[in-house]
Amino acid sequence: MEEAAKNLKYVFEAKSIALVGASENPDKLGNVILKNLVDGGYRGKIFPVNPKHKEILSHKCYPDIRSIPGKVECAIVATPAQTVLQIVADCAKKGIKGVVVLSGGFGEMGNVELEKKLADTCRKAGIALIGPNCLGVINPETRIDSIFMPFYKFKRPSQGGISFITQSGGVGSAVIDLAASYGIGIAKFVSYGNGALLSEADLIEYLADDARTKTIILYIEGAKDGRRMFQALKRASLKKPVVALKAGRGGKAGEAARSHTGNIAGEYLAYHAAFRQARVIEADGIGELFDFVRVFSQGMPKNGSIGVITNGGGIGVLAADAIEREGLELAQITEADKKAIAKWLPEYAHAANPLDIIADADITRFEKAIEAFMGNPEIGALVICVLFQLPSLDERLIKALVKASDDKRKPIAVVAMGGDYTLAQRKMLEAEGVPTYRDPVPAVRALKRLYEYAKFRNGKKKK
Amino acid sequence: MEEAAKNLKYVFEAKSIALVGASENPDKLGNVILKNLVDGGYRGKIFPVNPKHKEILSHKCYPDIRSIPGKVECAIVATPAQTVLQIVADCAKKGIKGVVVLSGGFGEMGNVELEKKLADTCRKAGIALIGPNCLGVINPETRIDSIFMPFYKFKRPSQGGISFITQSGGVGSAVIDLAASYGIGIAKFVSYGNGALLSEADLIEYLADDARTKTIILYIEGAKDGRRMFQALKRASLKKPVVALKAGRGGKAGEAARSHTGNIAGEYLAYHAAFRQARVIEADGIGELFDFVRVFSQGMPKNGSIGVITNGGGIGVLAADAIEREGLELAQITEADKKAIAKWLPEYAHAANPLDIIADADITRFEKAIEAFMGNPEIGALVICVLFQLPSLDERLIKALVKASDDKRKPIAVVAMGGDYTLAQRKMLEAEGVPTYRDPVPAVRALKRLYEYAKFRNGKKKK
Repeated sequence: MEEAAKNLKYVFEAKSIALVGASENPDKLGNVILKNLVDGGYRGKIFPVNPKHKEILSHKCYPDIRSIPGKVECAIVATPAQTVLQIVADCAKKGIKGVVVLSGGFGEMGNVELEKKLADTCRKAGIALIGPNCLGVINPETRIDSIFMPFYKFKRPSQGGISFITQSGGVGSAVIDLAASYGIGIAKFVSYGNGALLSEADLIEYLADDARTKTIILYIEGAKDGRRMFQALKRASLKKPVVALKAGRGGKAGEAARSHTGNIAGEYLAYHAAFRQARVIEADGIGELFDFVRVFSQGMPKNGSIGVITNGGGIGVLAADAIEREGLELAQITEADKKAIAKWLPEYAHAANPLDIIADADITRFEKAIEAFMGNPEIGALVICVLFQLPSLDERLIKALVKASDDKRKPIAVVAMGGDYTLAQRKMLEAEGVPTYRDPVPAVRALKRLYEYAKFRNGKKKK
Repeated sequence: MEEAAKNLKYVFEAKSIALVGASENPDKLGNVILKNLVDGGYRGKIFPVNPKHKEILSHKCYPDIRSIPGKVECAIVATPAQTVLQIVADCAKKGIKGVVVLSGGFGEMGNVELEKKLADTCRKAGIALIGPNCLGVINPETRIDSIFMPFYKFKRPSQGGISFITQSGGVGSAVIDLAASYGIGIAKFVSYGNGALLSEADLIEYLADDARTKTIILYIEGAKDGRRMFQALKRASLKKPVVALKAGRGGKAGEAARSHTGNIAGEYLAYHAAFRQARVIEADGIGELFDFVRVFSQGMPKNGSIGVITNGGGIGVLAADAIEREGLELAQITEADKKAIAKWLPEYAHAANPLDIIADADITRFEKAIEAFMGNPEIGALVICVLFQLPSLDERLIKALVKASDDKRKPIAVVAMGGDYTLAQRKMLEAEGVPTYRDPVPAVRALKRLYEYAKFRNGKKKK
């Protein structure tokens, strides 16, 4: 482990920030970031740095790092590459222990020597360096936020349990923006770009020990040190689930990745095998990354048998298809249980699994169906398919579904297909921590990953 | 072909409709449907039928079909199963040639004999029967709409080129609702439920010949007559693309399908092989169904080499991954073409494919990149990845992307990952016929299906 990684708290929990390259011009990153820190309610002190200005956005502006009075814990640097070494040297003298360099123009542009010097300076000074060539960090708890995208285009998530480590700023920010629009909270976001000093292994280790982080997402093109990364992943998996996406798999995609962050993409099959060994949940693309991570906010399934409840017969059939295809089991319902269900089910419906409670199902019928399956120890997890469009339902069903998701007996995945009205219901559910899907296929795939991770963790506990 | 199928125009194009089971009670289907016909601007005459009322929603109400004055082309029936035979007999006497029976309680409930009588009555009278146990039809052109879901929960799509034949009302309606919320237009929607008389084969044949229909979607659990369906599909595929989803694949899923619409799901592998032979584009779930169909609104790719343009390096890498995984080619760019691109590309970017035009790309740089790849005959189709979150972009880019999609030289797929702001951009694009995706994976999968269909159609033309 890099010694400097111990100082990552001065990035994520910084009580004071110097913003080097702060600007009056709304088109400049240094303006957007300052505005975001102020408007976002950053809880510490902010020191804009720019020799050309006395004041920016009502904050006193300093000509350089050295002239800031008192202690500064973190510096965000958004100035051209050739100015960065001097700035970081100033940070070292000032005793700043966390530095986020957003600027590009280092290894990814062939300026390998400059990047090495930057890393060396930070290492010697014990500075936890994020970047260069990155978006930096978000921590909704301290409201530190170095992302240069304006709020109206890119929503910031509330506080929650998912942390995201990403080598690509664009990919990471898009996922976080998507999460925010669903009301899904995050613990930490970090885009580390070229990872000159601290890279994925350091960040995985830090977040594995972070109490706020319940699940880790990793987007990786090519690890700086594959062996260290996999050791970190292996240890992290024992504490919390890690969902990873490896990009730059094939030959040509690998070339594209190299010119992106200056790292060698490496052989995909080696990653795939190592992820498997480290019990990392692998996603196939951004969509799956987002689909998988949300199901981990609930408890673990005790077995791989799935109960399906639906008010739309066809969607139940699709869920059953997905369950069989993913190698999970459609739970068997005993004759006794069927009789118990038949007592409250209308005579024109069948007590079975999938349990089609029919298009005229109201909230009470959903509640009875959920309770019948929740109380059945043969069932490990539930897929609840809701056509919110049907006239007999309204948003009061949300409460029943949140209750089901909070029920420690088994995890659930809600499938809700439809347009704007349905999406509004999904967002309410997601904001309450209930994973929702537009299609049974990703819902079942996510439950499959959860089940596999549960088996691994249970196996570890028994030993 | 069923003779009665010739009268399907009296369903989809009906100039007058009797609504049997019209109701004053807003909780009843017969009220919602009447309200939807009126509010939806149905262009023909509406005759509510219910012996208990003189007037409903300001429309004169008739005690029965026979007492309606003048000609009636279509009847929508939403009364209990045991009343339906008499109503259909009345329709026959009245000379009504199109009947939509929404009511359940037929074959799916074991009342096979009742369903057979219904079919026989309609066959003898030459009535084009949709249903029973279905949602019926939407035709945005004539504004006929028998869907009993209120507008605020379930948006109706505008007029467009996609037609949807669905055995499951729930699945179909959810997809249509989703399409509507994106502004994607449809030509016809038909949920045919038990398909007592007319079923998938008749509807495929009808829509294959329908000038408004450019693409057909089919959701099928079990065909009434597999041989006829596949003949119809084979003929339809020669005229327009057909995207199909077969549900009820496995043993247990098949049982669920049988109790849903009373049809035997059949052996999935037989369907899979027959789809393949009929050149039907098969989807794996609702998500794919929706993903695939939209790309077909553009022209056909001339080859399987893909050009990728992106303002986010990581997303370009993911697109390249997806292209290699799907067995398409990442197009080779000649040195001469690279030199031409380098003339306008900033020096800190690389002229390559994927073409990463960097996070500071403005609209002009996107336009130049699109033109460079559009004009390159080695490239068959474009994947354009846009991070709309970046400060240098705004919705003026929509115009450039619509122009690219309308460009006959090659089809495009736009990848736009992100939250609410990005989704708003995607909806503008979709409403203009540009297919958009949240992830490169489904975008590339869709282009792959388009390319395969193009090869088939080109092969047919050459013969």
